[in-house]
Amino acid sequence: MKSYTKYLNIKTKEEKEILNITYDVEKVLHESGIKEGLLLVNSMHITSSVFINDEENGLKKDFLEWLEKLAPEKSTYDGYYHHRTGEINADAHLKRTIMGREVVVAITKGSLDFGPWEQIFYGEFDGRRDKKVLIKIIGE
Amino acid sequence: MKSYTKYLNIKTKEEKEILNITYDVEKVLHESGIKEGLLLVNSMHITSSVFINDEENGLKKDFLEWLEKLAPEKSTYDGYYHHRTGEINADAHLKRTIMGREVVVAITKGSLDFGPWEQIFYGEFDGRRDKKVLIKIIGE
Amino acid sequence: MKSYTKYLNIKTKEEKEILNITYDVEKVLHESGIKEGLLLVNSMHITSSVFINDEENGLKKDFLEWLEKLAPEKSTYDGYYHHRTGEINADAHLKRTIMGREVVVAITKGSLDFGPWEQIFYGEFDGRRDKKVLIKIIGE
Repeated sequence: MKSYTKYLNIKTKEEKEILNITYDVEKVLHESGIKEGLLLVNSMHITSSVFINDEENGLKKDFLEWLEKLAPEKSTYDGYYHHRTGEINADAHLKRTIMGREVVVAITKGSLDFGPWEQIFYGEFDGRRDKKVLIKIIGE
Repeated sequence: MKSYTKYLNIKTKEEKEILNITYDVEKVLHESGIKEGLLLVNSMHITSSVFINDEENGLKKDFLEWLEKLAPEKSTYDGYYHHRTGEINADAHLKRTIMGREVVVAITKGSLDFGPWEQIFYGEFDGRRDKKVLIKIIGE
Repeated sequence: MKSYTKYLNIKTKEEKEILNITYDVEKVLHESGIKEGLLLVNSMHITSSVFINDEENGLKKDFLEWLEKLAPEKSTYDGYYHHRTGEINADAHLKRTIMGREVVVAITKGSLDFGPWEQIFYGEFDGRRDKKVLIKIIGE
């Protein structure tokens, strides 16, 4: 069994932003030389996500508006219990929960074994600072 | 390390439908001969899900009604930004996000290592067309 | 390839409760002797979750209040279709769906390969009874 580990550095321009990281993940997969196995991609932070969906700009806006409805930002110290700590980003913890922390992808014949529209995204909900995404591949 | 890959073909009768695929996954596991390892099951599409819950018809209806509340269908071109592409299925992308794309299951002594009620489901939110589910098993 | 399997027994005092299980998972990892690989942690029940977020008491309260809004408890037999079975815990199935069933964590140099704030939690939504969490590690 071989394993391969790599970290991506990400710093978004916007506080909330969705970035397509498929190409970066593919590059790491090719470096690894692994042909058959499983690939994990996860956010190393608790206010951002890694998820799989469609590369379409309208849909990215829909995701952000929808998350704002389900888990609204409240920029006051009594907006959420969590804000009593001095941080006012509880909404980002909730938004990340809906979008998910990680994806696990099958590696078949040296490629991400994807359906026609699958793409990997990093979803940032508390951005403009240094964050990391972990990629771990195991297989042969 | 052994690995085994298989694709299930699925075409639902309804636009939104929840199918129990536990038996299909077990069949693939037995074909693989793998006794200890991890099994990934994922939808290869971005408007459908694979998830684990309970085999109970009322609960399936509850899931569909609840998803409709959290991520409502809007059958107009201005209902969601995504609809400006001509597709009017943004709700299906959101519903799938709540239910999840994939599950990872432990394989122990040649079986799905499940609690008493765990069953694997395919959740379709934009159906009546050909879709695929991927099963990838790695282990020994 | 090595694999290691362990089950944690959990019985919460409250019906809905969030427990930090990071230390228990680390103990199992060290027992396993596995240095590079993947670790799966999942609830073996369909009304509880395993997820990764921040160890902060206010945030745990925020999660429980937020879930109650998105998937409210209805303690009557006609509150959800599922309640016609005699069980009145449909909300717990929905809450667990939002929080997720499982996490997959990279193992690097014998440790959970975590970002600065990542911690593993068990989220119980139908508690005060015996439940199990599965930990499966594969690697070398």
